[in-house]
Amino acid sequence: MKGIRQLAKHLDISIGTVSRALNGKADVNAETRQRVLAAAVELGYVANQSGRSLRQGTTNVIGLMMESSKETNENGDNFFLGLTSGLQSVLSRHKLDLIMLPCPSEEDPTEYLQRMVARGIVDGMIISATQRIDHRLDLLSRTKIPFVTLGRSRSGGEYSWVDLDFDGVANRSVDRLIAKGHRRIAVAAPSNDVNLGYIFIDAYRNALKRHGIAYDASLVFRVKSSEQGGYQAAHEMLLLDDRPTAIILIYELMAIGLYRRLTEAGVIPGRDLAVIGFREEPRAKFLQPTLTCFRMSVRDLGVELAETLLATMPAYASFYPKGACNTIWPLELVPGESDGFERKS
Amino acid sequence: MKGIRQLAKHLDISIGTVSRALNGKADVNAETRQRVLAAAVELGYVANQSGRSLRQGTTNVIGLMMESSKETNENGDNFFLGLTSGLQSVLSRHKLDLIMLPCPSEEDPTEYLQRMVARGIVDGMIISATQRIDHRLDLLSRTKIPFVTLGRSRSGGEYSWVDLDFDGVANRSVDRLIAKGHRRIAVAAPSNDVNLGYIFIDAYRNALKRHGIAYDASLVFRVKSSEQGGYQAAHEMLLLDDRPTAIILIYELMAIGLYRRLTEAGVIPGRDLAVIGFREEPRAKFLQPTLTCFRMSVRDLGVELAETLLATMPAYASFYPKGACNTIWPLELVPGESDGFERKS
Repeated sequence: MKGIRQLAKHLDISIGTVSRALNGKADVNAETRQRVLAAAVELGYVANQSGRSLRQGTTNVIGLMMESSKETNENGDNFFLGLTSGLQSVLSRHKLDLIMLPCPSEEDPTEYLQRMVARGIVDGMIISATQRIDHRLDLLSRTKIPFVTLGRSRSGGEYSWVDLDFDGVANRSVDRLIAKGHRRIAVAAPSNDVNLGYIFIDAYRNALKRHGIAYDASLVFRVKSSEQGGYQAAHEMLLLDDRPTAIILIYELMAIGLYRRLTEAGVIPGRDLAVIGFREEPRAKFLQPTLTCFRMSVRDLGVELAETLLATMPAYASFYPKGACNTIWPLELVPGESDGFERKS
Repeated sequence: MKGIRQLAKHLDISIGTVSRALNGKADVNAETRQRVLAAAVELGYVANQSGRSLRQGTTNVIGLMMESSKETNENGDNFFLGLTSGLQSVLSRHKLDLIMLPCPSEEDPTEYLQRMVARGIVDGMIISATQRIDHRLDLLSRTKIPFVTLGRSRSGGEYSWVDLDFDGVANRSVDRLIAKGHRRIAVAAPSNDVNLGYIFIDAYRNALKRHGIAYDASLVFRVKSSEQGGYQAAHEMLLLDDRPTAIILIYELMAIGLYRRLTEAGVIPGRDLAVIGFREEPRAKFLQPTLTCFRMSVRDLGVELAETLLATMPAYASFYPKGACNTIWPLELVPGESDGFERKS
């Protein structure tokens, strides 16, 4: 392990220049910077970089905590990779690196986060899949680590978040289905405590109420956020004596399993049952009949999240003067054939 | 920012106990460990954890470098999440944490890796998607950072790797198709420099040779490792005057695009063309007719990778006495309907 002095001596460059090169300052030319970085790696400058973090109190690394629960493993899609791309496009402006922190499924997410924060490798945190009660946010609020969440929660007090427009999706879906004569409109919602389920169901209830339709709890299927969950929702729905004539899904991959179970039962989406999916997803894109769903740019969402986080960090706030804020992220309706079915009254 | 002294004083516990708790030693009970970690976070012990890394020269963190190229963004599947789960199951035995390092698509992978190594946040590295010539491996070989790769390469000299059994897949696919009377067997291979493409094509050539069939370069379609790539391969194949009667795919998602293009042309897999896919994948699982492909446990692959890495790290080698090694990871044939078509001679 060499220190900055040995590194400077080895390169025959001043300590100041080596330091500026290691810190990515603009006044060091690219060739020198490259030489310094190469030598730092080869001479094992490794541990002293942690020393840099000790002296400066910064690491120039932003962490993205991911759930790697079994459910996510089974259903992982391109969401996190798209998000990462958007996050990096902003962070790279400031020579910040993104690392992804996958919480093992058997570990308590709050304890995991506490340990990762204690490791001192990140300057800021991005938290996804917020739960209705989410102690991770209380933990981060108590510490001085800047953070932003993808999703709201009842925990954590005041903090910056970006969340999808679940209210908008619920309202537009219900309005659209009611305009086509539907009155018994089912929902396939996540069975776990993820907050988006609660937000969506609240909005769905209110939308029904606006149209003078009573909320019927038997039409809300609590299933896994997966293809299997969609299959399960269709299965339960087919068992009902008084079947709904329409269904709204709150997770993108549910559509695939739902279509599968319906096909087995000879029920055709768009002809026998109106279906509205959630986010447009590559896998659901090829369903026949085409799925009515909602479109958003996951990459742009990543950009928004990163800018929201940096706006709360003193070193970068001047670039993003909006300060701490909460953003509802819009989704655009993509009409398909799956909700073409009009109910004769 | 508080040091270990202040932390011990605040908790009224000895510095030694606090230190052992922070380092996850087994002789500290769970409750005390929890109290110490909680206080460490709340008192902002953050930067001193980096100090720990400075003093000990270890971080207890293993990095997994991911390509986050545009291609991966478009086609990301559950591969990395499954892998992560297996890796973590081994690393957690030793209280090591896994972080994922997504290399931005616009950045040179070797420069990115160099910077991440220089940050000093990892004790070991796992590298995926090895290229035929891969300067990342030369870089890691020159440094003292232990590493393992998923995939072989011509670079890097002697090092530990785990790679899929591409030879076995090529041999079994070719043998199976030839037994059904096929002579003109196409391959859809990745168009980039990823090493697996070269290994597969070599094995495919040798398998054909064994059967006395000459290699025909016009039957090798170099396309993107994606659904779009599969669509493109089918499209090019349909344009040939002397069409192949069978095709082998080297990337799991290609099957979806290939089926789509074939369907558009009225060509039915298993009836008009024999198709063998690569890895069994949730998305390709629902294709009709069912796809003949190969099965493997991605989670178990993660276990193997982690154990192979730890076997090369002095602190853990006693647990994994196999030492540095190279492993060919087997895949199991899953017969489907897609290669049911027998060619009449």
